[in-house]
Amino acid sequence: MDTKQIGRQVLTELMGDGFLERREKTRNAFNDVLHDYTEEVCFGRTWARPGIDRKLRSILNVAMLTALNRPNQLRNHVEGALNNGCTMEELREILLHAAVYCGLPAATDSFRIAEEVLRARKLLD
Amino acid sequence: MDTKQIGRQVLTELMGDGFLERREKTRNAFNDVLHDYTEEVCFGRTWARPGIDRKLRSILNVAMLTALNRPNQLRNHVEGALNNGCTMEELREILLHAAVYCGLPAATDSFRIAEEVLRARKLLD
Amino acid sequence: MDTKQIGRQVLTELMGDGFLERREKTRNAFNDVLHDYTEEVCFGRTWARPGIDRKLRSILNVAMLTALNRPNQLRNHVEGALNNGCTMEELREILLHAAVYCGLPAATDSFRIAEEVLRARKLLD
Amino acid sequence: MDTKQIGRQVLTELMGDGFLERREKTRNAFNDVLHDYTEEVCFGRTWARPGIDRKLRSILNVAMLTALNRPNQLRNHVEGALNNGCTMEELREILLHAAVYCGLPAATDSFRIAEEVLRARKLLD
Amino acid sequence: MDTKQIGRQVLTELMGDGFLERREKTRNAFNDVLHDYTEEVCFGRTWARPGIDRKLRSILNVAMLTALNRPNQLRNHVEGALNNGCTMEELREILLHAAVYCGLPAATDSFRIAEEVLRARKLLD
Amino acid sequence: MDTKQIGRQVLTELMGDGFLERREKTRNAFNDVLHDYTEEVCFGRTWARPGIDRKLRSILNVAMLTALNRPNQLRNHVEGALNNGCTMEELREILLHAAVYCGLPAATDSFRIAEEVLRARKLLD
Repeated sequence: MDTKQIGRQVLTELMGDGFLERREKTRNAFNDVLHDYTEEVCFGRTWARPGIDRKLRSILNVAMLTALNRPNQLRNHVEGALNNGCTMEELREILLHAAVYCGLPAATDSFRIAEEVLRARKLLD
Repeated sequence: MDTKQIGRQVLTELMGDGFLERREKTRNAFNDVLHDYTEEVCFGRTWARPGIDRKLRSILNVAMLTALNRPNQLRNHVEGALNNGCTMEELREILLHAAVYCGLPAATDSFRIAEEVLRARKLLD
Repeated sequence: MDTKQIGRQVLTELMGDGFLERREKTRNAFNDVLHDYTEEVCFGRTWARPGIDRKLRSILNVAMLTALNRPNQLRNHVEGALNNGCTMEELREILLHAAVYCGLPAATDSFRIAEEVLRARKLLD
Repeated sequence: MDTKQIGRQVLTELMGDGFLERREKTRNAFNDVLHDYTEEVCFGRTWARPGIDRKLRSILNVAMLTALNRPNQLRNHVEGALNNGCTMEELREILLHAAVYCGLPAATDSFRIAEEVLRARKLLD
Repeated sequence: MDTKQIGRQVLTELMGDGFLERREKTRNAFNDVLHDYTEEVCFGRTWARPGIDRKLRSILNVAMLTALNRPNQLRNHVEGALNNGCTMEELREILLHAAVYCGLPAATDSFRIAEEVLRARKLLD
Repeated sequence: MDTKQIGRQVLTELMGDGFLERREKTRNAFNDVLHDYTEEVCFGRTWARPGIDRKLRSILNVAMLTALNRPNQLRNHVEGALNNGCTMEELREILLHAAVYCGLPAATDSFRIAEEVLRARKLLD
């Protein structure tokens, strides 16, 4: 498999069957370079590496996206973290830890997004 | 033990014997409230919690401090990560992963700081 | 009163009667640690301190949340600032001052949010 | 012409006829200082300068607003960039370039906003 | 007085006699536009406004520069805050308050810079 | 040529003969993945693309690194911008433009770094 194929496989494993198909429908003449970059550089080249497991990569993203203030991507990576075996208890600890370092407003925004994901999955009332 | 004592114990376990003594000498009439906050809120209240282990807390900090652009604290937490069992290989993967999400300049700055710590410990030529 | 009770009292004084009750209804198994952190660390431990008054604490938050790009929390603290005696004229000067230091886009976003709060309170047409 | 008049002329050339009129209707007792600052400091004093052309100023804004995480202003300046002769192909390259330096989440958010503008102008299906 | 002269007077009142002269010596063919912008837009147009006093403007800057991670300017504005009547106790409360909202690493960096200024003025051992 | 070779050629054209050799000496068992990422993803895959010229890519970086607060990389890309034909006058306009959008402290830090580069090249007294 080439880097792109590897990336697409990792992305499927991370986000579930059907994700790639739905995502492919949003590809167009403008964003195709970003789709390629995401599949090849992000997932094929980086996520596919050994050395740290995918659960940790998901967790790193939850922490970094909280610090970077990127709620749209955070939502996807909370999904990914849960898919990769991160529990609700771990997620809670990670975001509470982030409150100390990134500040309370950053943690509050991330808790809200994580809650929406958890509720959609019936993991939280 | 009260929260402060717990925090001071965690801090000692994380940064090694003597750290707290050296740190205590920098306490003064201005920064005492920050010393207390660090010991009580950060280490006693948050780091001391179960749910995720200390190695992961260190790793989260390496990732978040890269995103937050805080090299002084990053240096301390690279030390802490190594003390908590994070290997050079894991550190490298974490910072490479950060290159994709936080951008290459953020990762480049963090690699340089981690290298300085690794070299001081004779883990890198 | 313990730190939590002090924090809850400060929060009530800042955001008005009924705020805590509405907020309590959003507490769940996931976010309870964040609720505790907010009440104890943020309001009980920090806001409750003497040394600077609450109006200034609100004003600091308006300034910092503009810099930090956190519109959800900014909205709450514009409310808090008005409750703590900050006038529309002061708010305007603070956000104009922020335009110079945080950049015009940051100030523009914050002006829009403050306007929404002022309009909801009938302080602005 | 004084600085304000120059600024209003630049703003009209950048955003099209009618923009200033629509914008003027949003001026009120609270935000008038921001309107003045925008017209005088931003457009009259800075955009009106020679040395770099307006297409480049628009492009700089697309890049900086991606880094600064300010989607509302980005939308306006993608409009401005297209009005100033920036092509869809150039816009795509600029945002892909930003993926490397600002990180993939920043680029992903900006691609989405640029797509919305391009689609509203029938430049993209 | 025109805006530039007003700005230079405010700057002198804020930073003390001799500041402007020392600063003028650093003006050159490259940075003259920035010197003008600072004197006219920042100090002449904004700092000179009524509505909030200069002590509060200094305090806002200490808070915003902590959030923005700009230690060079923070140093100047800690100086300015002390010149404008901000006490060491107030400064301490402001930076402790910032720990909650901007995160502990931001506050730790700012405490260190403020300490250096206080020590240089013999206000702290 | 493969992506790595293309990237190394672009890097040489951007930073001058000898840059790659000096840089290669800093490669080690820890940072080799970052060196590869820089050469392949940043320069081979992205900078090597047509669509916008290298002068504009340098200029984008000066703007984005000002916003991102990354002085180490900014220094390199001010060098690169000058190598790619950006004049001192253009650089000045770009950074003045950044003052409006990123705030005055960001512009002030970047002016200082650009001045150091210009002075080292004898382009400024």
